[in-house]
Amino acid sequence: MSAYQELENLNREITQLKEIRAIMGWDEACMMPAAAGDRRGEALASLQSVVHERAINPRIGELLEQAQGSNEPLDDWQRANLREMQRDWIEATAVPSDLVRALAVATSRCEQTWREARAANDWATVRPLLETVVGLSRSRADALADKLGLERYDALLDGYEPQLRSADVSRVFDDLKGFLLPLIDPIIEATPACLPIPGPFSTERQRNLCEATMKLLGFDFSRGRLDVSHHPFCGGVPDDTRITTRYRDDVFLESFMAICHETGHALYQQGLPAAWRDQPVGDALGAAVHESQSLLMELQVCRSPQFITAVTPLIQAQFGISDDDPAWTADNLYRQATRVSRSFIRVQADEVTYPLHVILRYELERDLLDGRIGVADLPEAWDSMMQRYLNLSTEGDFANGCMQDVHWYAGLFGYFPTYSLGALMAAQWFAAARTADPAIMEGIERGNLTALLTWLRANVHGQGRRLTMQPLLESVTGSVLDARFFKQHIQARYLPS
Amino acid sequence: MSAYQELENLNREITQLKEIRAIMGWDEACMMPAAAGDRRGEALASLQSVVHERAINPRIGELLEQAQGSNEPLDDWQRANLREMQRDWIEATAVPSDLVRALAVATSRCEQTWREARAANDWATVRPLLETVVGLSRSRADALADKLGLERYDALLDGYEPQLRSADVSRVFDDLKGFLLPLIDPIIEATPACLPIPGPFSTERQRNLCEATMKLLGFDFSRGRLDVSHHPFCGGVPDDTRITTRYRDDVFLESFMAICHETGHALYQQGLPAAWRDQPVGDALGAAVHESQSLLMELQVCRSPQFITAVTPLIQAQFGISDDDPAWTADNLYRQATRVSRSFIRVQADEVTYPLHVILRYELERDLLDGRIGVADLPEAWDSMMQRYLNLSTEGDFANGCMQDVHWYAGLFGYFPTYSLGALMAAQWFAAARTADPAIMEGIERGNLTALLTWLRANVHGQGRRLTMQPLLESVTGSVLDARFFKQHIQARYLPS
Repeated sequence: MSAYQELENLNREITQLKEIRAIMGWDEACMMPAAAGDRRGEALASLQSVVHERAINPRIGELLEQAQGSNEPLDDWQRANLREMQRDWIEATAVPSDLVRALAVATSRCEQTWREARAANDWATVRPLLETVVGLSRSRADALADKLGLERYDALLDGYEPQLRSADVSRVFDDLKGFLLPLIDPIIEATPACLPIPGPFSTERQRNLCEATMKLLGFDFSRGRLDVSHHPFCGGVPDDTRITTRYRDDVFLESFMAICHETGHALYQQGLPAAWRDQPVGDALGAAVHESQSLLMELQVCRSPQFITAVTPLIQAQFGISDDDPAWTADNLYRQATRVSRSFIRVQADEVTYPLHVILRYELERDLLDGRIGVADLPEAWDSMMQRYLNLSTEGDFANGCMQDVHWYAGLFGYFPTYSLGALMAAQWFAAARTADPAIMEGIERGNLTALLTWLRANVHGQGRRLTMQPLLESVTGSVLDARFFKQHIQARYLPS
Repeated sequence: MSAYQELENLNREITQLKEIRAIMGWDEACMMPAAAGDRRGEALASLQSVVHERAINPRIGELLEQAQGSNEPLDDWQRANLREMQRDWIEATAVPSDLVRALAVATSRCEQTWREARAANDWATVRPLLETVVGLSRSRADALADKLGLERYDALLDGYEPQLRSADVSRVFDDLKGFLLPLIDPIIEATPACLPIPGPFSTERQRNLCEATMKLLGFDFSRGRLDVSHHPFCGGVPDDTRITTRYRDDVFLESFMAICHETGHALYQQGLPAAWRDQPVGDALGAAVHESQSLLMELQVCRSPQFITAVTPLIQAQFGISDDDPAWTADNLYRQATRVSRSFIRVQADEVTYPLHVILRYELERDLLDGRIGVADLPEAWDSMMQRYLNLSTEGDFANGCMQDVHWYAGLFGYFPTYSLGALMAAQWFAAARTADPAIMEGIERGNLTALLTWLRANVHGQGRRLTMQPLLESVTGSVLDARFFKQHIQARYLPS
């Protein structure tokens, strides 16, 4: 057996154990009774230890060296697979295990404290815990950076989206910021009024609508499920993709749009290359590309006037409403789906203001990691940026300021940018798709997504990790990540001339 | 760290990985979309390899020797834990791994073929595959018997119920057979007629009734769930016990009694000693004792006139029926729940004829394993015994004869006796419980199971594997397994003087 083949065998087992972890994670969020949480945590930690033990198997290091020095002819996919194995190996072995443990303990404590402190707007209690997390995160980033030959913050970015660099991020974010800041006021002023959509909406009917919409978008229910959880997510594995939403009886657009978003993630997962199912190269690219697939579906397709017009009869039929009711016209539904306003909370923001929430976090976390600011400076820095970007003050309001998101308290530095990179990339994929096949927009107008899905399967989903983000974007759309497609989209949707 | 303590640590990890396997098994039966089956099978095989690798870790063998030769003072539970660890070690290491693999391949092929062959009443096709399974099962039993110092068939019995021997089984089964054979006719003749209970019954109402009944029996929903699967079962882990049933719209008693049965298993699992949660001694005893808990709940409690009278208002309320309807009286419900008739199929048999189905299988499989008969002799031997025990002929009818159960085709020899041992033991526990605390029957008459559950927790559930089956029975009820309690039960319920 060649070194490369032996590596494939070792990775097959690792992938299969990770798939079990994925289903167990879904179970924890959707099925597990609360009192089982502690024991489950211990069981998952044991599974995680096995996965880690397999991932740092010294034999992998030896085989990687042999395979890289070998003359065995490898095709495109195999070479990419070897590259991804090398990357996984560095990630698994770069950080000393006491640092991994220390960070696990610190983030667990900090996150738990944050949950209660946020509810009490209590910054003082969580601050020292966050300082510990930031300190250990810097050390972890340095260990990774050392092995990867990168800057500290770039080493963290690379963990969420392979080969992504802060130079790429800053370039598109600066471009976007320059575009958005002067447009927020005109867009809000131009927003047409909309009528409230009266409830209540039964869970059963919302669920029926969600399932019908998932089918319409191309979700394969023979290889997946829809369930309920506290926060919507897409989990499971490629052949068993499980998405969730939650149902509020006073608003149906929330579960509906959550499903559109998660179905975008799910289609990516279900469309990954079957021939590489249990190898690293068969996996999805990073968080930015994954988010580009959910946002392509949610923002580009499902909030478009064409799609909303196409599904309005479906919505009306489900809730037993006639087209005569002005609240239930396609036009009013579209206005509801594209309302713009300034707000404090990122997760409630619309697609126009959302990037500013992300850019703020990106700028702050980079400075925090690089030591240009300290944890103690966060509330003031946050407030001053919020005033500059969104004309809102968070002075003294930590819960709606720098304590609103779990990410930093859980040690997730470098993740925030992927949300808005995903939004930009979604616009770029969608522009390329429409250009490549005019049937795509015609299909969306008729509520038929087949042509779009065919294009996504061929150009994105089925590509797995053969290329990293920028080369894939370049080969498919003709350019690396560029904010201009998103800017055109915002202009066209919110300030049509 | 002492050898004993290190053994506890090694076993903690093994238990936790087995708990993950248990939840994944539940998921496969209840949640997994069909198309995910192949990949899931591979992932579970990988997990199983990890569990096996841990179980045969040579360090365990060394530590067992050290611990057994050590002067470290161990308490009752620790000594029993060491005994169970030794047992697990022998079971994991006794059978050569090529034999394990060969048997896995043979049973998988045979079981798959059996599924189709049974539907076609095609004995000739499955016969050679079953011959292979029997041959390999004999070899496996011999390997175990050699390490355990047991006879061949006893080595298999021991795998399902620790320390159970065929001498014990034959003694009680011969006693029971002598009692039942002459009574079948008089019991059937004495059976009062009952009115059919007209449906349809909505799934929602059946589910409500099942949940209410589970609560009444003491099931802790903060540490468990009720779901739907093709066959009812009890799965999950002690702090997350998951039972299932299925709902037919024309019969509600089926899902109801399935729930009573599975709740008996579940109460055992939820009541295992928390202090020993992740050690072998904290586990449930074998299949016979487990079945005694489900049958205590189903046969002794839930099919009793007292319990049925207590839950009749609950049933009537759920299905919106008044007490005036003669089909819905407690009396008619009780008659429905205690109908007796001869039948070909074990899983459809009532509690009076069921043991004869089991005794037939026990006698045949013992002869088969010991080589007194061959696979080719099975159909005729089955037919002749069915004629003798139940006055029914299965000549030429393989599907309702020796092809009706999956067990042998899946290599499960030694399992059948546990069903009826469970029924006998259930009667023995219940007799002891009623004698120990008169409040138990008074409670059941009022639909309050607290006193019974308290007794079971203290005497059975909370004992884990501190003692094996016979010593536990003897210490709690005053005698080892004895058929007389079941005989008294049958006499009292079906032939009251």
